[in-house]
Amino acid sequence: MSNYEWKPTRTSPIPLHQQIYEYMKEKIMNGEWTIGTKIPPQRTLAKIFKVNRSTIIIALDELVADGLIKSKVGRGTIVINNTWSIITSTPPPDWKSYVRSGTHHPNQEVIQHINKEEFSSNIIRLSTGELSPELLPSEKTKEIFLQGSKHTLSLSYTEPKGNIHLRVAICDYLKSKGIGITPDSVLIVSGGLQALQLISLGLLHRGSTIFHETPSYLTSVNVFQSAGMNLFGVPMDKKGIRIDVLRRLKRHHHGALLYTIPSFQNPTSVLMTDNRRKQLLDFCSKERLPIIEDDAYGDLWFQQPVLKPLKAIDRQGLILYMGSMSKTLGPGLRIGWLVGPEPVIDRLSDIKMQTDYGSSTLSQFAVTEWLTSGLYEEHLYHIRKKLKKRRDLTIQILENFFSDVATWNIPEGGFYIWLKLNVEVSIVKLFHNALKEGILINPGNIYDRNDANHLRISYSYATEAQLEAGLKKLALLIKKMNK
Amino acid sequence: MSNYEWKPTRTSPIPLHQQIYEYMKEKIMNGEWTIGTKIPPQRTLAKIFKVNRSTIIIALDELVADGLIKSKVGRGTIVINNTWSIITSTPPPDWKSYVRSGTHHPNQEVIQHINKEEFSSNIIRLSTGELSPELLPSEKTKEIFLQGSKHTLSLSYTEPKGNIHLRVAICDYLKSKGIGITPDSVLIVSGGLQALQLISLGLLHRGSTIFHETPSYLTSVNVFQSAGMNLFGVPMDKKGIRIDVLRRLKRHHHGALLYTIPSFQNPTSVLMTDNRRKQLLDFCSKERLPIIEDDAYGDLWFQQPVLKPLKAIDRQGLILYMGSMSKTLGPGLRIGWLVGPEPVIDRLSDIKMQTDYGSSTLSQFAVTEWLTSGLYEEHLYHIRKKLKKRRDLTIQILENFFSDVATWNIPEGGFYIWLKLNVEVSIVKLFHNALKEGILINPGNIYDRNDANHLRISYSYATEAQLEAGLKKLALLIKKMNK
Repeated sequence: MSNYEWKPTRTSPIPLHQQIYEYMKEKIMNGEWTIGTKIPPQRTLAKIFKVNRSTIIIALDELVADGLIKSKVGRGTIVINNTWSIITSTPPPDWKSYVRSGTHHPNQEVIQHINKEEFSSNIIRLSTGELSPELLPSEKTKEIFLQGSKHTLSLSYTEPKGNIHLRVAICDYLKSKGIGITPDSVLIVSGGLQALQLISLGLLHRGSTIFHETPSYLTSVNVFQSAGMNLFGVPMDKKGIRIDVLRRLKRHHHGALLYTIPSFQNPTSVLMTDNRRKQLLDFCSKERLPIIEDDAYGDLWFQQPVLKPLKAIDRQGLILYMGSMSKTLGPGLRIGWLVGPEPVIDRLSDIKMQTDYGSSTLSQFAVTEWLTSGLYEEHLYHIRKKLKKRRDLTIQILENFFSDVATWNIPEGGFYIWLKLNVEVSIVKLFHNALKEGILINPGNIYDRNDANHLRISYSYATEAQLEAGLKKLALLIKKMNK
Repeated sequence: MSNYEWKPTRTSPIPLHQQIYEYMKEKIMNGEWTIGTKIPPQRTLAKIFKVNRSTIIIALDELVADGLIKSKVGRGTIVINNTWSIITSTPPPDWKSYVRSGTHHPNQEVIQHINKEEFSSNIIRLSTGELSPELLPSEKTKEIFLQGSKHTLSLSYTEPKGNIHLRVAICDYLKSKGIGITPDSVLIVSGGLQALQLISLGLLHRGSTIFHETPSYLTSVNVFQSAGMNLFGVPMDKKGIRIDVLRRLKRHHHGALLYTIPSFQNPTSVLMTDNRRKQLLDFCSKERLPIIEDDAYGDLWFQQPVLKPLKAIDRQGLILYMGSMSKTLGPGLRIGWLVGPEPVIDRLSDIKMQTDYGSSTLSQFAVTEWLTSGLYEEHLYHIRKKLKKRRDLTIQILENFFSDVATWNIPEGGFYIWLKLNVEVSIVKLFHNALKEGILINPGNIYDRNDANHLRISYSYATEAQLEAGLKKLALLIKKMNK
């Protein structure tokens, strides 16, 4: 319990028991004394407040009458209620089911750990799927607001599907990827996660089955699971998702959707081949299995422009295409987009308007300017070079320190190396041991709960010095644990 | 059905029936031919595509086999399925209940009408509770990004409660209103509606009762109703909510919360007196009835600084206080804040992180700059003057044209005049008739479904010329309808 520097005022016209009652009531009501807090015995309180025990008894009786405290046999007197507890003691049904479905997953605890540690500043984050702050164009984004612009900055509400200039700019941008659409088929969203939430709310039945690559980013977020959907993993090879397995699974399970990241998949960085893309689209057309194509990393190629998105060869409106600025300009903008058949986009935009009045007009304006000025292309050019340099450095470090304990892929774009340990080391133990040494890593079971020997190493976030120091330490740790 | 300019290619190696099949399948799958669309008779199709009827029969049989079309006795052949229909034919349970609960309210149709018409440009909007675009500081907001700032613009994710500099700035700003708090008690939200949604999701049980002033803005949004809460109106007098009635209601209904707008209430513009504020807080303290205090209009006083918020005299953590930039700097920023007991704010910020990764960092940066530079105070000074001028003009017009058909209050701040018609005219009919004349008004039953003779006239949005023209026409219309 908090300090007791306060004493009742003997010279006050308010009776002592009343003063003590009010003091304790305030402590309880404003949440300082939380529910379950033990109240000291009457004798102790009498000493603390320098009053008779009978005065304490009157004050406590009042609190009991208020329903705020209660004497429990063998436990003394405890706080049982406060203002907000009346409404917060048990979460409302919907939210409870949300939280419960989250804890169904064994890796949940590790993810919570990661989320918490990400905000502590002394840690080397080999885990974070985000561009390093030093790679994010904050100053340029400031300047963008004052460069001469054809578009005025609106501070009013936007149209349900988002600012029209931004939607036009996105159409132009997507044209360069072979996707020909009109602004009516585009919905601006506040990041990729919101896109998935809108789909989950607006298009899927509770209990629907969603196919996805295994391992996949999708199993690390709770958006579909918490809405009661079943996730079903489909293995990959080096060319992308395995269609033979998908075919077999589809025969036994009625899937409602396939979620895929064809370019620089998260966490494996696999780039689905052109041929596999065609086969996949072919299969899904025949089976009438709609696809969510997540193209968050598509702009981040190192050697040569990435293959055309599935959406570019979609003639049947089979694909809901997701894009975002989070991996290139920064997640703080909270700007992404969904592209799909107009009736579907109409429906999702209705839902967006009812759950959220649209995305920030400042962010929409800034992204419009980035896209239409050509500065976005310029930025990508630099980011690709810098990411490639980080990848090269990381591969070099891996060759120097990990060649006897692990194998890995060499990503042609994106943020991640999918490191496979060849030694008998528990990746969950490794996670905790690394954390003690100040290194944050993502164990593979976040992305595939059956995985026991992969780590996702991100070279996008930590500084180059941190990459070197962190990976070196990690290798030592693995070797030590393997002894 | 859409145009039939397309014809099968006779020189193609693909059989004619296959070409027709694929053409029609594409129309169906991409949603151009929606479900229920009638397919023309076989003879007609044969003529259109210039092929034999047997070719048409083969193509249609294929579509039937695909489950895309079906012949129905007496109705011909119709489209019964398409790619997305498989998942969108019936909304998922949760969303359905959302939509259904929305339509419980008789005025829902009028609100939908208003939302739609607000984006048509030729209309005079006497309805909109928003500052006119000409009063919103877009240019200044652009400049703010380049003025010398102590704070760097982050494009990464922010802390769960929102950017710390913004939370500190809000603490300073609230100090001037007599509210002394620390940044840990502040949660940045994407506008007031999100604040209400977080409260609804995180603190309330389904079926909880919420007291509010009658009439109230709260009945015009569906946030609580769609989560299964019951709303209970408490009448007002000129001094604010009537505590005698609240006391009586509280005895018969266990209310979980009271929602109030003490300053320039929406829609009545009533300014709760200082005395009434004290009585209300007193009553709610005794009854342990938590309060949501919505202070969206508090900065918009005309003559003298508004009375202190309830939160300023709250000693028990009874009040969740809501503020927002939507009514002063512009709704496009999507920035508001919730202030309350720390455990409650912690809980709501957890929910915010799971439903939305935080608000735009551009918007958070801009609002921080507005507040810390003193520019916000300067902006308020100008806005108050301009709003007062608009109020004066509107009162003048009312005196000239409405004195024989209506009475009204003279607001001391905020956006609204609560106009009471003294003639026998249906306000819903008036709404539709006014719309035909290009004038959008909000009938009073949006804010109190039993209300039959009020209009909420907003002087914040329309231009001064539009206010004059619109109100003049409206008066004529009322007089015509009253004949």
